[in-house]
Formats: sequence, C-alpha cells, structure tokens
Amino acid sequence: MFLTIKLHIATQLNLNLHANKISTCTNYNTKIRSKPICNPNSLILKVKDHIPTMHAVHSSSRPVKSSLIEPDGGALVDLVVPESKRASKALEAESLPKVNLTQIDLEWVHVISEGWANPLRGFMREDEYLQSLHFNSLRMKDGSLVNMSLPIVLAIDEETKGRIGSSSNVGLVGPNGGLVGILRSIEIYKHNKEERIARTWGTTAPGLPYVEEVITPAGNWLIGGELEVLTPIKYNDGLDNYRLSPQQLRNEFDRRQADAVFAFQLRNPVHNGHALLMNDTRKRLLEMGYKNPILLLHPLGGFTKVDDVPLDVRMEQHSKVLEDGVLDPETTIVAIFPSPMHYAGPTEVQWHAKARINAGANFYIVGRDPAGMSHPTEKRDLYDPDHGKKVLSIAPGLEKLNILPFRVAAYDTVEKKMEFFDPSRSQDFLFISGTKMRAFARSGENPPDGFMCPGGWNVLVKYYESLQAEEPSKQRAVLST
Amino acid sequence: MFLTIKLHIATQLNLNLHANKISTCTNYNTKIRSKPICNPNSLILKVKDHIPTMHAVHSSSRPVKSSLIEPDGGALVDLVVPESKRASKALEAESLPKVNLTQIDLEWVHVISEGWANPLRGFMREDEYLQSLHFNSLRMKDGSLVNMSLPIVLAIDEETKGRIGSSSNVGLVGPNGGLVGILRSIEIYKHNKEERIARTWGTTAPGLPYVEEVITPAGNWLIGGELEVLTPIKYNDGLDNYRLSPQQLRNEFDRRQADAVFAFQLRNPVHNGHALLMNDTRKRLLEMGYKNPILLLHPLGGFTKVDDVPLDVRMEQHSKVLEDGVLDPETTIVAIFPSPMHYAGPTEVQWHAKARINAGANFYIVGRDPAGMSHPTEKRDLYDPDHGKKVLSIAPGLEKLNILPFRVAAYDTVEKKMEFFDPSRSQDFLFISGTKMRAFARSGENPPDGFMCPGGWNVLVKYYESLQAEEPSKQRAVLST
Repeated sequence: MFLTIKLHIATQLNLNLHANKISTCTNYNTKIRSKPICNPNSLILKVKDHIPTMHAVHSSSRPVKSSLIEPDGGALVDLVVPESKRASKALEAESLPKVNLTQIDLEWVHVISEGWANPLRGFMREDEYLQSLHFNSLRMKDGSLVNMSLPIVLAIDEETKGRIGSSSNVGLVGPNGGLVGILRSIEIYKHNKEERIARTWGTTAPGLPYVEEVITPAGNWLIGGELEVLTPIKYNDGLDNYRLSPQQLRNEFDRRQADAVFAFQLRNPVHNGHALLMNDTRKRLLEMGYKNPILLLHPLGGFTKVDDVPLDVRMEQHSKVLEDGVLDPETTIVAIFPSPMHYAGPTEVQWHAKARINAGANFYIVGRDPAGMSHPTEKRDLYDPDHGKKVLSIAPGLEKLNILPFRVAAYDTVEKKMEFFDPSRSQDFLFISGTKMRAFARSGENPPDGFMCPGGWNVLVKYYESLQAEEPSKQRAVLST
Repeated sequence: MFLTIKLHIATQLNLNLHANKISTCTNYNTKIRSKPICNPNSLILKVKDHIPTMHAVHSSSRPVKSSLIEPDGGALVDLVVPESKRASKALEAESLPKVNLTQIDLEWVHVISEGWANPLRGFMREDEYLQSLHFNSLRMKDGSLVNMSLPIVLAIDEETKGRIGSSSNVGLVGPNGGLVGILRSIEIYKHNKEERIARTWGTTAPGLPYVEEVITPAGNWLIGGELEVLTPIKYNDGLDNYRLSPQQLRNEFDRRQADAVFAFQLRNPVHNGHALLMNDTRKRLLEMGYKNPILLLHPLGGFTKVDDVPLDVRMEQHSKVLEDGVLDPETTIVAIFPSPMHYAGPTEVQWHAKARINAGANFYIVGRDPAGMSHPTEKRDLYDPDHGKKVLSIAPGLEKLNILPFRVAAYDTVEKKMEFFDPSRSQDFLFISGTKMRAFARSGENPPDGFMCPGGWNVLVKYYESLQAEEPSKQRAVLST
C-alpha cells in the first residue's frame, strides 16, 4: 500500500561524509507528534498512548515534514489489512489452503509487513531470490538497484505443496494456530538448501545457528507471493511497545527534529565501549555541523543463538544504561529491530544497514566483524573481521547511506575505563570479548571497573544466576556454546 | 592502456529484443582489413598475415568504423608492453621478486591482458575480489556497474609472500620458467578458500574440477595489482591463430560489416542440435530485420575437466562441421576463448557472456544448464538447469547484451534428425547427453543418423581410439568421470 500524499522537502543536511553521497529529500507524509515517544528516564514507551497506528498515519492528510533518507523503492510498504476489511479477509484466509508458519517465519512476516525490507511486498519469488543470492540486490523497474542481501523466503514441504495444488492464494497460520494473513499470486520453486547456505554464509560447515534452527528442518520448496497481514504482528511479551515500525521511527525522528540519525545495531548488552563509540559519533556529527543528531539504539529482537543474552534481559540492561546516564536519553531512541539473526557476517550487515535506511537512519555505525561469529568447526573467525565494513562501503543500493566505521574500544587498564585502542601503548589495553563478559557474569565475578555501568551489569548477573537455578539440561545447552 | 583516438558512430542496429536495451555506439577506433580473416573452407586462419598486432591497431590513426557494443568500462585494455619498451621492462622484471605462475594462472594473464575481463587491468585487489564474490559486479568511478562474476585472482604461498617482502612490484614467471610480465603496486590479502568456493560455486562439496586443480593446491594469500605483459601470450600448439583477441574479433566483425554478432560458447563437440540452434538464431535475427548477423562460434580454450574433449580435438571437429556445410563459413567466425573453465553454472555463465561483450558480440545464446555439471557427490545436477538463463537475464552489468535463451533440441526418432523438442510428441524424442555421446564414441558405436555430421563424428571416434592405446592409468582417469 503506497502513501498517496507526497511532498518534497529538502532536509537540513549541511554536510555529507562522502563526496558522492547526496543530500536526500523524501516524498511521503508524516505527522508531528506533540508528546515524547520515550520516557527519557525509564525508557518505557507508551506507544499506544502517543503514536497512531500506521493506518492512522496513512489516513492522515496532513503532510508535514520530510525525513532524512528515502525508503528503498520510494515509499514504505504497509501490508497490514485496513481494519474495515479485516473480517472479510479473515473469512477468505480461512477458506484457502493453509501454510503453517514457524516463529521465525512470523518474525519475517512482521519484518516484511512494516517495510523494513522495502520495497519487498511479500516472501521472495524466484527472480527476487536469485537476485538476492547472486547479487545481494534487487533491480527496480527504473533500472536502479536496492540492496537485498538476505533471501527472505518461506519454505514449505512436499505435503503442503500438494495441499496447495493449483490455488493462487494461501492462508498463513501462525505458530499458535491463529490466522496471520494471506499470500497472494503465489509462486512455488525449489529450495536448494546447500546453494542457499553456501552463497549466504560462504560456508556449509555444520553448526551455523540459523541454518540448524531454520533451514535444515525446512521443506524443499519455497513459496513466494504478495503478503497481506490481518493484524499488526504482536508478541505480547511486554516489549511490543519497543517494536516501533519504520514509519513510527520516522515520525519520531521528525518530531525530535533530527537533522541526522545514526543507527547502532546490536545483539549484546551495551558496555561502556559501545557507549564511548556512540557518544563519540554524536560528537563527530556535531563537529561536522549537524545540530541535532539522534541515536537509534536498535537491538535485534528476532531469533538469536542460544548463548546470546535474551531480548528481555538485553532490553532491561539497555534501560539501565540510559538510567545510569551512560547514554543521553534526550538524544537517544531505543527500539527493537524485529529481524531474526543470520550470523552471516558481510552478507548480513548489508541487511542490517538497509533495513535502517527504511527506518529513516542516514548514518550507520559498523564495527569489527559485524554479524560475525566463530567458525563453527575451525578455530578462527568465520569472516575476516574487516570484510563487513569493506563490503558495506561498496554494496549496491547502500550508496545513499553514510557508513561510519568505528574504532576499536578496549579496557584501558591505566585510565580504568573503556577507551579507543591506542596501538602505541597496546600493553595498557585489555580486550574483553562477549564470551569473556558472559563468563564473568556467569561466575559472578565483576569485570574491571568502568567496563559497564553497575546497573546494567547487575541485570546480566541476575540473568545468569537465574540460569543456574534452571534444570541442568538447559543450563548445559547454554554453557556449551 | 586506453585508446586515445575516439569516434562516435551510431550502429546499424534496427531492432532490439528487449524494450530496455538501447542501441549502442562505440568510441574507439578500428581499421578495415582488406583480406578475409578466415579461409571459408578450411577454417585455417592466417592471423599473422592478415591482422595487425594489437599495437599496430592501437598506433593506427585511422578511425574508421564502430563495433556493435561498447566494451565494459569504455575502451579495451591492452596490457602488452610496446615492443620498444620490452627490453627495459624485461630487465626490470628480472630484478624484482618473482611469483611463479601455473599454466592456469598464465591463461588468466592472457585473458586479462587482451581485455576479455575489461575494465580489469590486473589480478584483482581485495575490493574488486569482494565485489566480485558478493555482488558479481564491479562499480566504476561514475557509479555504473560492470559484470564481474568470477574472482580473477592470483594466489601465492607464505614463502613467496615472505620473499616479496615490502616490494611494490613483482616479476611473473611462466610455467616454463620464462618471464611473462610484471605486477605493479601490488596488494597482498588473505585467500579464504572455503568462502571463495562456497560463494562462487554454491557448494563446498569435494570434486569440483577447478577447485581441485587450482584452488586446493594454491597458497593462502592473493596478490592483486596492475598487470604488464612482456609479449603476447602464445601456446605454440598449432592453435594460436585461432586465439583472436577481443580487438581482433571486433576488427573482423567490422570488416564483415556485421550488423549483429551472436556468440555461442561451448566446450563440447558441435552436434546437429547445436547447429540447428545457431542456424535458427541467424534466421530469427534476419526476421527481426538484421541484414548481416555473424555467428561467433567460440569454444573455450583454457582449462577443462579431464573427461571433456581436449581443445585440439574439438577444433578439428568444429572445422569438419564447417567443411561439411552444417554451419555456413561465410557467416561464421570460429575463434578460441582463452579462459579456463570453472563449471560454476549461473555464476560462470555471466563471465562467459561478459567476456563476449568485450569481444564485440551483442547477442549471447544461452542454453540449458550453462557451465553446469553433475553434483560431485549427489545424484543430481549441481545447478537448477533454468537458473543460468534466469540469472543472466537479471545480472547487473549485462543489460546492454541481448540474451537469447534457446529451445531444447533433441533427436527426433521419426524425422531422424536433431529437432527442437516438441512436448506434444515427447515419445518421439531421444535426449543424447554429452556423457552418452562420449560413451558412443568410446565404444566405437555410431550415434543415430543425423546426430552429428560424419566428418565431425570421425574426429571424436579417432580421439577415443587413441585413448584406448594409451597407458591404462590415464585411460582409467578419463573414463572414471
């Protein structure tokens, strides 16, 4: 569903980091909100009180303000059925052959329906899948390319394919048995798992988390088509208020009159090294002439591997980081990015960046080894730690995004705080990996002073204490990786 | 080395197959030749008598005629050192740290030096390698993309890296010990073989011919840089006259006043199904309004797997096919494409097409399962047989090339000839695979009448007879695949 009221307003971008990046203007309408989206001290968002639903936004006829970067393809898709049509669409879905969604399929339905994968309007058809797999991009009708590095596909098995028969449309059933939506004008094509894995991860070694969880158990067919979602996807886990859609984020950036938005993707607790980096980025943007850079602290909320810290714990930890004043709540928005995690390094970091373009961020911070992990069967990093930022800087479709590669931060044992690594006195620095951080928290040992704010650290310690109390089998699973 | 004399001449293209394909004009100079390049009856080319060397062409100041499609990047590179500088460059190369080339490395030197990989000017640097691996394309300074689906890289081992030390340039030594050229402003980076293989082939299964021959034994570092070749690469195998460079082919197309050039890549003997297809393509181009379509029958001349028919046998077979009148010598040019074969299906077919753009072909015929093979460890095709043409039709940088997907030909047992497969009477058709054809030839059994011209078939029979006479170990190796 495209927005119909269009307005071109040049942004207040004064400077650009790269010579070939042009200032952007947008052509969709948004609405100024009078109240803050985010309680500055507690990070508790009362979205329902303050933010209209996407439909309310869309039905508004008050074009008011541009955002900073145009969504891929020109206008955000919104694939949620208007309320007036829900009943009839639900009836129709009920009458169609059914496809059962896993929890991770549902996360992708969420992602697609809100426009994170703009301009994708459903699960990929074969020509989109092939373009994603081979070129990490999709060609638009006008010949331009948008980035699309991960195949966003829905797998079905032989039996489901048989049940669908020659039907053009199918009903989508969520993991709890409820109808979620409709996939229209479907196309069914082969799911060559080996090729998909090899081209996405650059390895076929056993032990890749997304592969083991999602691809290996999946069917040998993929089904593409146009998606319609009956109602906005909710998780009812107490965190839905943090799940701001790209449109809601854009509205909030506008409300705060941001002249630059810099996104920070993470799937780990925030330590003071991250904070140093985010604060330093803001400083650099101010030095460049921006007046009001806003940080989008954007933890990934979908599937993560078993030894990553769960979303609810991370959200509590992030909240403490803002409470403790490590990050400035006035210039920070914390929201959840609903995508599942692939751990596909340079291929996946493009997706992380591209989705944030759609959410209105025009700067993207990229670190060492983004979306990377250890090789599942060899004693080395799966990806060259520098390839993520290199690939991001040359990826088709990401030219309009300003990439901010970050300097490595480590614990400065002299200054007793996280500091940018200084190779001239490397002996003073201590690198505390995620694995080491988790080991500290598990053992109840404190990390060095200044590594993480005490409030945030306590959240982690409590989480690992709670794990000790759980049954031994689950604990083993968590500790083994 | 770019051509300095430029001339814009619109081509005589009247029709284009695809709405979004635009007629092309070129901006480089060529020279009309007064004598035929190709003896129409024997296919014996006397290139040295008739065709100036590339340098002679380049030093000419007579801009005369355009070709039909512009080389990628705008002008063909020519990386062969001018004769006047050869002695001093050879002395310099001698003084530099040396890198030893394998036979297949040398084939790539040949490919790069003549502009088949235009605009590549040497073995890939890391940013080119990453673009090739992830995006199958390279971004030009003006923001446009050229296709580049295969990594064209030179591997070195730890010991060679150590010997190079901090030198900026290295001398390249051919497999016979002679100096071949210089690689300048070198860049050495890691050779992650697993990732290269997975992203290029979409599998890491053991048994991929190019992987086993080239990548597995190679060093763990890649060396990129600007290439200079001391003298044109020659093989002295009696076939060098067939190895026309892209510039020589362009000259010949111009000389024949071609208004369309359609390229047919192959690594197998030509049977009457291929001939049907090529003749049918010519007919279709004439029907479209072209007056003088020329066929570039372009067998691959570099590395092929052990059970493929060797180049010299194939060239003899192709020669018989023209002698027997199956293809029209007046409208056909047979030349050798010097690239090694990857057997990388949809990834490689892009390379095959892109290189022919550089050679001046504006139409490319693509068949079922191009550059495909059986999965090395599973009982199936390695690639979906339709993916090659699908990927080719959407590949970045190939928009200017007209892709001609071909209909499947099979042996019509009623008509007793090769004919386009007619599904309405599928029982009448017999599919004779390359494997089956080789089995016929090996056993001395004749294929059905009309499968291949008798002269061509005899060449194959003789080749397999000669194999029988060889030592058993080699024979086993050939028969086992």
